[in-house]
Amino acid sequence: MAPKCKLSYFALMGLSEPIRFLLSYGKMDFEDIRYEFEQWPPVKTSTPYGKLPVLEIDGKKMHQSTAICRYLGKKLGLAGENDWESAEIDMAVDTITDLRLKLSDYYWEPDEAIKQKKKETVFKETLPFYLERLNEQVKENGGYLAAGKMTWGDIFFAALCDYMNGVAQFDITKDYPNLASLKKKIRELPAIKEWISKRPVTNI
Amino acid sequence: MAPKCKLSYFALMGLSEPIRFLLSYGKMDFEDIRYEFEQWPPVKTSTPYGKLPVLEIDGKKMHQSTAICRYLGKKLGLAGENDWESAEIDMAVDTITDLRLKLSDYYWEPDEAIKQKKKETVFKETLPFYLERLNEQVKENGGYLAAGKMTWGDIFFAALCDYMNGVAQFDITKDYPNLASLKKKIRELPAIKEWISKRPVTNI
Repeated sequence: MAPKCKLSYFALMGLSEPIRFLLSYGKMDFEDIRYEFEQWPPVKTSTPYGKLPVLEIDGKKMHQSTAICRYLGKKLGLAGENDWESAEIDMAVDTITDLRLKLSDYYWEPDEAIKQKKKETVFKETLPFYLERLNEQVKENGGYLAAGKMTWGDIFFAALCDYMNGVAQFDITKDYPNLASLKKKIRELPAIKEWISKRPVTNI
Repeated sequence: MAPKCKLSYFALMGLSEPIRFLLSYGKMDFEDIRYEFEQWPPVKTSTPYGKLPVLEIDGKKMHQSTAICRYLGKKLGLAGENDWESAEIDMAVDTITDLRLKLSDYYWEPDEAIKQKKKETVFKETLPFYLERLNEQVKENGGYLAAGKMTWGDIFFAALCDYMNGVAQFDITKDYPNLASLKKKIRELPAIKEWISKRPVTNI
């Protein structure tokens, strides 16, 4: 049996849910360590760059959620078959990250007046702009984001929807049938469905 | 002769300079299209996700600067030799991107009072925090960011320094000898040195 790996993050889905989905998909048993924000300051200094998630795997300490997902994707046979397919996945994933960053920028804005302004831009402009294009991309790719087949990019997207939906307070894929269907397809994979049924419930 | 590729970006170094460094390193002739901000609105709709850079290469249109650099890194023999080395490069590159995003968040802040506050945090906290750790990482990696050898991650860093130095208005590596030496080493590679000597001069 492979040694258990250890994922450290906050008590959120957030940036770690794609990692948890991938570990679950691969039936890789993992310790799911969740820090409350007040526990964070002493932990911060023990991380490579003052951030979470950190994944301890194969005797190594990994950071940077996207790099972790790409690494797991390769281990699980969910990467591109050639450099171009890999690039297609990377482009899709970084585009979803751009969207996530815009949502986060609104969500974590401390000034209420500025937050309201950001909210308007995010919901009226940013979300429709990205989602229309992503929806079309999934249509063109036979129901997946890239390479015409299921890759770690699709799992990344389906998992990050939980955070993005929590921020939006609605299912962001609801008006985008190809995205909704992709999300559903991934979340109904037996190992991922099982993870979703047993994971701790959080809003984002 | 390989067909010329075409890089579209703004009249800046910014996110495209790592691509320009990599193309130059690989002696891949490229058309260096630079849009002024006032030319941008009609161009925006022709890009995959409303953003630049876009690289036309091998008959395909690529977007997302990091994905482009990773793709070029593989083509040029500058990628990891195995999944772990590739992950090390990815972690370093995404860490540098986190730092770059913090600098950009300050630099492009339109409200002058908020900008001054962000400036203080960026220069007193963020920059030293990242640079100390990156400097140590380069020391531990035999003078490179990852995998104990020169990779596309080093070229990405050395090129992005131009943008980050422009934002900071000083050489951010000046107090970090391992970073300064890495930057110098990359910029003295003949093909990159030649690119630097002939490129258009911009501040960022």
